[in-house]
Amino acid sequence: MVETLLSTIEFQMSLLLFVALAGYLLASKINQSAVIGEIIVGIIIGPSLLGLITYTDFVASIAHLGAIILLFVIGLEFKLKEIFNIKYGFIALVGVIVPWIGGFFLTRIFGYDFGSAIFVGTALTATSIAITANVLKEMGKLQTDAAKAIIGAAVIDDVLSLLALSISTQVVAGTFSWSSTVFVLLKAIIFLAAGSYIGIKYLSPMLERVDKSKIASKFPEFVFIFAMMIAFFYAMISELIGLSAIVGSFIAGMALEGAIVQHGKNYKEGAEYLHIIFASIFFVSLGILADFHALTFGVIGFLIALTLIAVATKVLGCYIPAKLQGMSHKDASIIGWGMSPRGEVAMIVALIGLNAGLIKQDIYVSLVLMSLLTTIITPIVLRNWFYNSRSTQ
Amino acid sequence: MVETLLSTIEFQMSLLLFVALAGYLLASKINQSAVIGEIIVGIIIGPSLLGLITYTDFVASIAHLGAIILLFVIGLEFKLKEIFNIKYGFIALVGVIVPWIGGFFLTRIFGYDFGSAIFVGTALTATSIAITANVLKEMGKLQTDAAKAIIGAAVIDDVLSLLALSISTQVVAGTFSWSSTVFVLLKAIIFLAAGSYIGIKYLSPMLERVDKSKIASKFPEFVFIFAMMIAFFYAMISELIGLSAIVGSFIAGMALEGAIVQHGKNYKEGAEYLHIIFASIFFVSLGILADFHALTFGVIGFLIALTLIAVATKVLGCYIPAKLQGMSHKDASIIGWGMSPRGEVAMIVALIGLNAGLIKQDIYVSLVLMSLLTTIITPIVLRNWFYNSRSTQ
Repeated sequence: MVETLLSTIEFQMSLLLFVALAGYLLASKINQSAVIGEIIVGIIIGPSLLGLITYTDFVASIAHLGAIILLFVIGLEFKLKEIFNIKYGFIALVGVIVPWIGGFFLTRIFGYDFGSAIFVGTALTATSIAITANVLKEMGKLQTDAAKAIIGAAVIDDVLSLLALSISTQVVAGTFSWSSTVFVLLKAIIFLAAGSYIGIKYLSPMLERVDKSKIASKFPEFVFIFAMMIAFFYAMISELIGLSAIVGSFIAGMALEGAIVQHGKNYKEGAEYLHIIFASIFFVSLGILADFHALTFGVIGFLIALTLIAVATKVLGCYIPAKLQGMSHKDASIIGWGMSPRGEVAMIVALIGLNAGLIKQDIYVSLVLMSLLTTIITPIVLRNWFYNSRSTQ
Repeated sequence: MVETLLSTIEFQMSLLLFVALAGYLLASKINQSAVIGEIIVGIIIGPSLLGLITYTDFVASIAHLGAIILLFVIGLEFKLKEIFNIKYGFIALVGVIVPWIGGFFLTRIFGYDFGSAIFVGTALTATSIAITANVLKEMGKLQTDAAKAIIGAAVIDDVLSLLALSISTQVVAGTFSWSSTVFVLLKAIIFLAAGSYIGIKYLSPMLERVDKSKIASKFPEFVFIFAMMIAFFYAMISELIGLSAIVGSFIAGMALEGAIVQHGKNYKEGAEYLHIIFASIFFVSLGILADFHALTFGVIGFLIALTLIAVATKVLGCYIPAKLQGMSHKDASIIGWGMSPRGEVAMIVALIGLNAGLIKQDIYVSLVLMSLLTTIITPIVLRNWFYNSRSTQ
């Protein structure tokens, strides 16, 4: 009856899931990660080629839910002390500074203005934790030392990127002040510390108490809804502070990791099922988001150089501090490559820059496609260079 | 970073889930169905009272997904032959005609014009299968004879309501023709027949083959995504034809009911988890959708009369044919009450009528609040009059 708005929802959902399935088949065919298959099929049906679906508000919303749920599920596999580590902080710090410098100078060399260069540098600092985390999860490698370093460094990277974005926009606008910079940093640190503390100390035991209560024996689903509510609540606070929403849901997941649920519905299993549907849509959406039409011939040189710099600076910027801290060559390499996908984070930063008039269309397109390329390269490298691809589940 | 649009998603998700939890607590406290608790708390936080959340596109989308998933899960518990039955067709037919006549004459008696009267009659023909089905599921009564009759009659009711809407709009516009009416009916019947046939004959075995294939052993989640894709695809076709999307997902669920999955992820379990989160949001949204502010003093008399007529005509219009076919007084009563919630169906019909200029604000408000009242009354009656409320799971 309501063909106007609502029919599009079912169409988009069934198409997105159909595309996700095609992505799995492609991934299986070329023996790559499902993430790669989904992104590639997303590009094919998106505005770049077939134009069957665009990045509508609905797709954006569902993809965003997918990213939040994905990091919640990843968080559920980690303990706090495995992730927060001064070593990982050092990796994140160098892995933010080196790409920033690389991006800044490359953009200047190509003749762009000072403001654009600062913005490109900032976009290169980002790391999309979702891609690498999912690839490692898919290969059953989440509990390795390298994986822990990647996840830990990626969370700290998000704080540092936020700081870089804040400093950069102030510098471009000529309003830089130390006090506001320190304030941004403090907010982020307080959120991570207080969020972890409150989660582990109060919310996790509360979830267990809820599980033992009368309400859970009457309505077993209560426990699962409670856990998901915490995930979205943390995501909301995280985004309010300026961090990625997914950092919040990751902290929520980590806080609830140890909670033991016996009577109510198993929230870990439930989150896993939500993850299957919504994270798939998130990966497909990355392909939809990147529109190759905007790519002009003149910008190809800059795009190639930018992508090379993006990969090289992140790989080296993380490899060197990891190696200096005594990690093996293999682990340090995995960390470097694992940190290098920019994913949706740099795409969204690029969109902010374009909408704010800080960058022009050519730089915007280059940033989006660079994000896409770094995102596609990483799973391929991880799978084929470092992990025996036959050992997948 | 993207506080503009995205932050609102997490806020809305965590608030909706928080409200769902509050609804469960309230339901437990007053010993009623969770559906009732969720709707009432939805009214409290919605525009009627606190105004913390409105019926945004996002809420509408998620609620719509919830309704589709809910009916898919319900469908997974039924076999085709349990539902399609000439007996239930008779119940549905009388249960559509009697409310239509009641609504038409009541509206005329209150002095409204001919077009409004036809539209109110049509709105009263609707049955919201979602409410009753969820209440029966919650009480573990889905496999009773009365439940099968309700579900079967409600699906046929949807076809007849579609027909009534089509005829009514044509009559009001002065363009009525038998051929287009027959065409609407044929489309609906062909969809139900072909959808069931193709689903049971081809899609269910295909799901089993997928489960046994290499792709499912490599990516167990493939099977679950495949099943959900079918659910949304059927919902899309159903809505394209003019039926409710939820009728489509119900048929999809019924078609996949018998598929046995061993290697891939259990799609029934997965759909159940999706249902927990999204159906809760759907019920909360019903409370949000009903805005009491639009209620003026002058319309209260009509609202009360309309609600009484809506309940009385549906209860009697289904009770009598059920009784005539030899069902017990209790079963016939359960069927009558079970068919009477108008839920979101009549609310959406009312919205169409308002937007098309067929009805005025006062009738619109009355229809929305009538839907809400019939929706709240049914679970209370079913739970307290017919089923021992202590026997709930």
